[in-house]
Amino acid sequence: MAVLLDKVNSPEDLKKLNPEELAQLCIELRNIILQIVKKNGGHLASNLGVVELTLALHLAFACPQDKLIWDVGHQSYAHKIITGRREQFATLRQQGGLSGFPKMEESPYDSFNTGHSSTSISAALGMATARDIQKEAYNVVAVIGDGALNGGMAFEALNQAGALKTKLIIVLNDNKMSISPNVGALSKHLNHLRSSKTYSQGKQRMFDFLSHIPLLGEGLANFARRIKNLVKYMLVKGMLFEELGFTYLGPVNGHCIADMQKLFEQAKAMDSPVLIHVLTQKGRGYMPAEKSPAKFHGVSPYELPEEKEKNTDSFTSVFGNVMVEMALEQDKVTAICAAMSDGTGLNQFAGLFPNRFFDVGIAEQHAVTFAAGQASAGLKPIVAIYSTFFQRAYDQILHDVCLPNLPVILAIDRAGLVGEDGETHQGIYDIAYLRSMPNISIIAPKNGEELRNAFYTALQYPGPVAIRYAKGQTEPAQMDKKPVLLDWGKNELLREGQDVTIISYGVMLPFAMQAAEILQEKGIAAGVINARFMKPMDEDLLLQQVEKSGHVLIIEEHVLQGGLGSLCMEILEQHQSNVPVEIIALPDELIRHGKVSEIREQYGLTVENIVEKALLLLQRGN
Amino acid sequence: MAVLLDKVNSPEDLKKLNPEELAQLCIELRNIILQIVKKNGGHLASNLGVVELTLALHLAFACPQDKLIWDVGHQSYAHKIITGRREQFATLRQQGGLSGFPKMEESPYDSFNTGHSSTSISAALGMATARDIQKEAYNVVAVIGDGALNGGMAFEALNQAGALKTKLIIVLNDNKMSISPNVGALSKHLNHLRSSKTYSQGKQRMFDFLSHIPLLGEGLANFARRIKNLVKYMLVKGMLFEELGFTYLGPVNGHCIADMQKLFEQAKAMDSPVLIHVLTQKGRGYMPAEKSPAKFHGVSPYELPEEKEKNTDSFTSVFGNVMVEMALEQDKVTAICAAMSDGTGLNQFAGLFPNRFFDVGIAEQHAVTFAAGQASAGLKPIVAIYSTFFQRAYDQILHDVCLPNLPVILAIDRAGLVGEDGETHQGIYDIAYLRSMPNISIIAPKNGEELRNAFYTALQYPGPVAIRYAKGQTEPAQMDKKPVLLDWGKNELLREGQDVTIISYGVMLPFAMQAAEILQEKGIAAGVINARFMKPMDEDLLLQQVEKSGHVLIIEEHVLQGGLGSLCMEILEQHQSNVPVEIIALPDELIRHGKVSEIREQYGLTVENIVEKALLLLQRGN
Repeated sequence: MAVLLDKVNSPEDLKKLNPEELAQLCIELRNIILQIVKKNGGHLASNLGVVELTLALHLAFACPQDKLIWDVGHQSYAHKIITGRREQFATLRQQGGLSGFPKMEESPYDSFNTGHSSTSISAALGMATARDIQKEAYNVVAVIGDGALNGGMAFEALNQAGALKTKLIIVLNDNKMSISPNVGALSKHLNHLRSSKTYSQGKQRMFDFLSHIPLLGEGLANFARRIKNLVKYMLVKGMLFEELGFTYLGPVNGHCIADMQKLFEQAKAMDSPVLIHVLTQKGRGYMPAEKSPAKFHGVSPYELPEEKEKNTDSFTSVFGNVMVEMALEQDKVTAICAAMSDGTGLNQFAGLFPNRFFDVGIAEQHAVTFAAGQASAGLKPIVAIYSTFFQRAYDQILHDVCLPNLPVILAIDRAGLVGEDGETHQGIYDIAYLRSMPNISIIAPKNGEELRNAFYTALQYPGPVAIRYAKGQTEPAQMDKKPVLLDWGKNELLREGQDVTIISYGVMLPFAMQAAEILQEKGIAAGVINARFMKPMDEDLLLQQVEKSGHVLIIEEHVLQGGLGSLCMEILEQHQSNVPVEIIALPDELIRHGKVSEIREQYGLTVENIVEKALLLLQRGN
Repeated sequence: MAVLLDKVNSPEDLKKLNPEELAQLCIELRNIILQIVKKNGGHLASNLGVVELTLALHLAFACPQDKLIWDVGHQSYAHKIITGRREQFATLRQQGGLSGFPKMEESPYDSFNTGHSSTSISAALGMATARDIQKEAYNVVAVIGDGALNGGMAFEALNQAGALKTKLIIVLNDNKMSISPNVGALSKHLNHLRSSKTYSQGKQRMFDFLSHIPLLGEGLANFARRIKNLVKYMLVKGMLFEELGFTYLGPVNGHCIADMQKLFEQAKAMDSPVLIHVLTQKGRGYMPAEKSPAKFHGVSPYELPEEKEKNTDSFTSVFGNVMVEMALEQDKVTAICAAMSDGTGLNQFAGLFPNRFFDVGIAEQHAVTFAAGQASAGLKPIVAIYSTFFQRAYDQILHDVCLPNLPVILAIDRAGLVGEDGETHQGIYDIAYLRSMPNISIIAPKNGEELRNAFYTALQYPGPVAIRYAKGQTEPAQMDKKPVLLDWGKNELLREGQDVTIISYGVMLPFAMQAAEILQEKGIAAGVINARFMKPMDEDLLLQQVEKSGHVLIIEEHVLQGGLGSLCMEILEQHQSNVPVEIIALPDELIRHGKVSEIREQYGLTVENIVEKALLLLQRGN
């Protein structure tokens, strides 16, 4: 099948191909990407969109001497395949296999690790200055999408790059959408540029016209010259980028390799920052993905819609339903997301309440403080962002929400292990960083119904609340019944047991319950606490059970450092309790990609290990 | 003295004053600000710069119905004085007194709490949408400095505001500097606007000229019309803001109340986002501050330079000297700061090594990933930022430095209590959030010499290292001797003692040592561990001492949640040690402004309390 691709073992091999062969290679690349993503899951639309761009880049630049940085990095599949990883590509996103993102340790062609948005220009500028200081000579190229350009740090980097004036190439991969369709004024500016062909045509005519204006006297001549300069300035496209100190080239068709190569060569010849505006089409070459690229942003294996309907019992879909329910009842409820209306389950809300729905684009910092502003003026905003992306807004959560004690609800989706996206996307730090912030409450509901009740309850609470829930499936909420107010700060004793107390939350609770069953068979009575309120922690229940059992076993799909385990130990210490505590949690290392079940197996987040650790704990006595 | 000011009890009273009286009021305001800042410390130059702006705003807008948000907020002194807090102003920044920043709980005139930079536009836009949704009618005004506009989240907010098109007023307070002189392309753009009077004059002449171009045929007429529109578009000032969807008004003299009022009235009449460019002079009206505004950015009481030379034994100044020393020896060392070259002690470095010094402006996110880029390309970057501002770069530290294990050194200044700036500036969260990140090492040196050795050692370490140190004074480093390599991950037993083990770090160690002396007098032998390596923690020393003494007392100027205390308990748990642990740390609440010594007293970070807690701990037995 892959006649040409089999001969491409490094970018050098591309240079032996003629245009027809390159076109054929694009087809072969799309085929292999489609085939493997269907099997392994992954990012489809974005990768199909940059096949020609990837080839044009590797034809124009000499990687790995030249540094190529893929912003976000989920669009690096074609790059991986043609830089010597064709054979391994079948292992994409599998445990021990190729990562779905660039990794320096995986290949010298991966110049910088990415995963989160909007970092590439900062990293590229760092490399460019390093090159200058060390008196080396190579090109640094950052490829960034129009959505990622919305992120504030991209602007910070453009701002410094424009001032430093060193050689740096930014390729703006403009596919008119981030994940959801793009929002914001910048997006409108890009739209304007996209349709700017008339300006180019007008440019020559304008100069012809101006050169024929009769020059009457010195004053008018000067004036005419000034107009000429002004108009010239005006007709330079990409004003915004030019104002920031970049030379703007483009727009260029991102599916025409030859046209792109020309601009890349032009950029290589320049000694100052250049931005090349490349227009691509997400999902290019695969009809369903061309039509609905958001659906094909990140897909799980076998979940392409021809094959399977979306499961409606995920925590995310329950959240989506609950948001609609709450908004119907309460006028003041708003929903805010950061370019993820689909991923966070807010599409229905957005359709029903367009005036109360805000997609701020990839701008998590702004999203949180924007919510704080709404809360300070009487609304009840709910900010839905994945755990890993809330990290971008650490300071805004602490400084703008927690310190002033504003009633903003953080809906933390994808909390815990996310699996195949690997270490850059695991939601395993949020409890550690949130629980040291004053005023915030943290709830981790165990299932759909508890999630619903948590939001219902949080909406009546006068301070900030974080509600975290996993990517996985859950029992649906009982939407036909009325939601129930949770007793604030009260946790649930799921099972009585006087020998050992197992404490857990969220999706690990079923594991704890199963382990307790097995322990029961061994004659050991294990109590299980659902620590849904992590903060305020239900100290009474904790101390009461601990006193009874004398042994505490904590299970969490979160890093050990600063998690529920250390939280419980802090409380026990404050109450001068010295009972033995054992914690099963994720260790202080990179938690790499693989199936969630495989990662759990690797780190002992299993029923068997809970049983084993409980038995060992009991041997320690008290 | 303050003849007029005594009559101003609310902004309403301003409206009774004529222009001469307003001018007189400005003099009185400057006098009281100067007088109190000299006594209490605080932000001088920024407050002197916005006296007229503050009056113009309160004359044009009807606060507190209209919402006024001061970005950063350290320039809100005149605002506080004229909004009913004149009498309390003498208590500025004192424990229990007025905060140096806007606080909603302090006054209804303070619409939003600020402290960190670049948040105001997000908050304002949140309020504006809340107003629209609730069908209310008021103005929302954000006052933001040109330096703060560099911060990425300000761009994120502008971007959404320009697209939402709702009524919103941004006052750009352009004093040509953030704290250090401004950097970046945006700053150049603003410079361009400042000198844009010629454009305004040219505008009328241009229209006259164009209207006299003979229209030859329909085609040319259309073409002329297009030119006209283009030129008109061109001549609109503030292209960058206009491109982002704002109407740009100005620039206007920020020391002429009447001129500003006119523009504010114009903005009030508009139904879409407006940016008003106001030119002010930092330190206005006080010659030393006009000349060196960076020195007068934040001043401590009695530290105005006429009165006292800068103390050269602060941790910061030792850091500054060490950076020069290291850079002289190692070509690859670079220094990066975020608009704080003076505050972080890097001025000398910047002067000596301009090519290796990077002030990125108020852009902490970019600063960290920029450093990661440099490290990935072979340099040894050191990023110096205050603890509280590193919070802005949480995700960049985790995602771009720690996960790829890049050798970036974070120089965390102002770690621990900072005192008079209050809850928004305390550096008391960094250990909690950093220690859950993989790959990072954390060192907290106890004095200048150890700080020097820490940097010397970290520069030879192949992964990320955070070195945190306090605002306070310390013994200087012995720069005449060679620096010493610290044994990686090894802590120091400062004092032997078999009854109780006290563990602390940084500036709290002298307290621990004094307490140990007092305990000695009571016949109790307290060991003291200098936990300079927080991560990797010296487990051997910890376990060895704990085994010996059977009691652990941990002292830290950091929040209890997730700090050294919980770190030690995690380790003890892993080694199945159940010894009683007592922690003295800051509680889970807002740590407000006051002298550092007062705050320590309030929360038991005192020698007396350490002694007392040690005695109680010993009563618990083992």
